[in-house]
Amino acid sequence: MVVLGVDPGFHFAGFSILKKDQRSVVLLDVGYLSMSPNKSLVERVGIFHAFLDGKIKQWHVTDLAIETPFLGKNAQNFLKLGYLRGILYLLTHTHGLTLHEFSPREIKQSVTGYGGASKDQVARVMLQLFPKLEKPKKEDVTDAMAISLCGLWHKKSLLNP
Amino acid sequence: MVVLGVDPGFHFAGFSILKKDQRSVVLLDVGYLSMSPNKSLVERVGIFHAFLDGKIKQWHVTDLAIETPFLGKNAQNFLKLGYLRGILYLLTHTHGLTLHEFSPREIKQSVTGYGGASKDQVARVMLQLFPKLEKPKKEDVTDAMAISLCGLWHKKSLLNP
Repeated sequence: MVVLGVDPGFHFAGFSILKKDQRSVVLLDVGYLSMSPNKSLVERVGIFHAFLDGKIKQWHVTDLAIETPFLGKNAQNFLKLGYLRGILYLLTHTHGLTLHEFSPREIKQSVTGYGGASKDQVARVMLQLFPKLEKPKKEDVTDAMAISLCGLWHKKSLLNP
Repeated sequence: MVVLGVDPGFHFAGFSILKKDQRSVVLLDVGYLSMSPNKSLVERVGIFHAFLDGKIKQWHVTDLAIETPFLGKNAQNFLKLGYLRGILYLLTHTHGLTLHEFSPREIKQSVTGYGGASKDQVARVMLQLFPKLEKPKKEDVTDAMAISLCGLWHKKSLLNP
């Protein structure tokens, strides 16, 4: 089982790829895709698709984990987030992945034990779990790690309740 | 110039393909994609992508025309519409199309001369312009025709103001 967790965004998109091997969890790849706001939305949608398509093939990803978005103050941003989610759904379909979707609260609860945890608290737990990891520049990265970890644990609990 | 107009939807998605040839406008293809609500969203995103990808290749489409959505009562539907728009953006990128986007008001204004026209009024104008066409079962089809026509006219007015 190889889980890709994605925190999508048109400027920075965090990703994390975890593998479950017997009893251990291995962090295969982690980082973020940065896209210039000078590029058109069409171009960025294309780059986002190509980047994750490459990661899925490279690491033989089997599962995709994402966060359920909430409508914020800006309806246009909410709609644009939908574009990237559409791409994630398409990748799920193209590569026959299993899709896991969690609310932000579920993710924070699973990872820190507290559903109202801050991004910084989530980051600290991730760095404790993966001590070899240097503190990433972007919280999108530790967010994506938490999402992928949730995908992995969720699956586990479904298989061995 | 071959313009694909799309009125996206997870149940019915109207499409229309128009070609501008010298002084005439030819309707190459028109209809709708129907997707069962029993299928998952992931599957439907995949079907929507494959269907339009096929149409673009078949008719050597050069331009894509779509409507700007407005946030309605249901935020989740708005977000889901974003998934399909993401797919349209990806197809624009993959096939190097030119993207045209119009507000519903602009489309109705261009086509009927009145920005507040009903779907039925739009349908009637489309049937007058293309008298060989039988009245489609779905207004999504005549809507898509109006969108593609707008893409065609808009381009024309940009080239020959």
